[in-house]
Amino acid sequence: MKSIDVCLTPDLLHLHAIDNSIVVVADIFRATSCMVTGLAYGIESITPVATVEECYAYQQKGYFAAAERNALKVEGFELDNSPFSYMDDRLVGGHVAMTTTNGTLSITKAKADAVKVLVGAFLNLGAVANYLQSQSYDVLVLCAGWKGRVNLEDTLFAGALVEALKEEYMIAEDSALMAMRAYQQAQDDLLGYVSNSSHVRRLQRLGIQKDISYCLQRDLYDVVPILRGSTLVGI
Amino acid sequence: MKSIDVCLTPDLLHLHAIDNSIVVVADIFRATSCMVTGLAYGIESITPVATVEECYAYQQKGYFAAAERNALKVEGFELDNSPFSYMDDRLVGGHVAMTTTNGTLSITKAKADAVKVLVGAFLNLGAVANYLQSQSYDVLVLCAGWKGRVNLEDTLFAGALVEALKEEYMIAEDSALMAMRAYQQAQDDLLGYVSNSSHVRRLQRLGIQKDISYCLQRDLYDVVPILRGSTLVGI
Repeated sequence: MKSIDVCLTPDLLHLHAIDNSIVVVADIFRATSCMVTGLAYGIESITPVATVEECYAYQQKGYFAAAERNALKVEGFELDNSPFSYMDDRLVGGHVAMTTTNGTLSITKAKADAVKVLVGAFLNLGAVANYLQSQSYDVLVLCAGWKGRVNLEDTLFAGALVEALKEEYMIAEDSALMAMRAYQQAQDDLLGYVSNSSHVRRLQRLGIQKDISYCLQRDLYDVVPILRGSTLVGI
Repeated sequence: MKSIDVCLTPDLLHLHAIDNSIVVVADIFRATSCMVTGLAYGIESITPVATVEECYAYQQKGYFAAAERNALKVEGFELDNSPFSYMDDRLVGGHVAMTTTNGTLSITKAKADAVKVLVGAFLNLGAVANYLQSQSYDVLVLCAGWKGRVNLEDTLFAGALVEALKEEYMIAEDSALMAMRAYQQAQDDLLGYVSNSSHVRRLQRLGIQKDISYCLQRDLYDVVPILRGSTLVGI
């Protein structure tokens, strides 16, 4: 039987053997929600990079570039970290380079050892679950968290995926069980459940309540972003 | 207002500034439950040590010695890691040295920077909460976990303490919020809630269901173990 496990922050990734696993990276507010939205709206590829400097180099090569630090857009880049910015006709068929505080770092960390790296969000939850079921590998959901700390929204996404797969996968460890139970508790009112979380308070101070509500919607899109080399494309 | 935070495993302790905090270490199955029980039954002091070799050195000096690795007693030591072994008239007034897989390591890690280090368990939950309320410091609950991983029972204890203190303390981060909500979900049936957890399955294979039920009882004792130098004494 395949197994599913959850890593609550990239600072705990060293505890997980992932050489037989597909890793699903989740940074719900907002990197992976942006990636799913962008690929669903027709962006050709998204290249996650670790540093602002790398992002700038891609921009010089003609990529659209998105750089976020501490939930704010870095000056000199055209795209911010709001999913609504990725619903843009100018971007259709284009290539995007992106760096964010937590999400792109997690992708970079996972790609060295995982069988495949996918990008998940509530927006493509069902599509990710379906894709995983078609594969023969174990699953690790990697929550991007906030600067190494655990956060609520990424944990809830992880729990939603465990819940979706629990009949066919063995739940490996307590973090997966905890995430699933948190999702079961939260699923009828995700917005209410996260409303006291640290990151939602941080984002609300920035006036982006609309992004929060959007990112908590389930199954808006069928696209599954997958890492090919260093670039995410939709399948 | 004082704040309360939760560190879900010692592998994440580097993310927390604890120089104004009392750290409460919890290793529910079973190190901190043993410590609380032992001090409640009249043991004079318990010295947590990191290695089996140090434990042996204390034994040579006349201490009672307890060494556990991977949930089993290490050969050559008189005490195992069952709380029932600490209800022993021979131990009254005596000194114990103890090393365990997770719990004693967490105490060692916390003591370098914390204002004070306490030992918590469901068995002395209310006493720990009362003591903390009498102090002016922030609180960090440090879950011992299992070899760096998050576990359910220590998280539930952390959540119970957050729940007990939430009126007087600010909840610092999402891990504290998550732990509190898990406890709220679990509190009417702690045993049922942890029955699928990885560590309970590990312990059940060893035939120690009785220890599990015992360690989930709340408020059996009023003692609060506190670290003085390198030694735990009851207050």
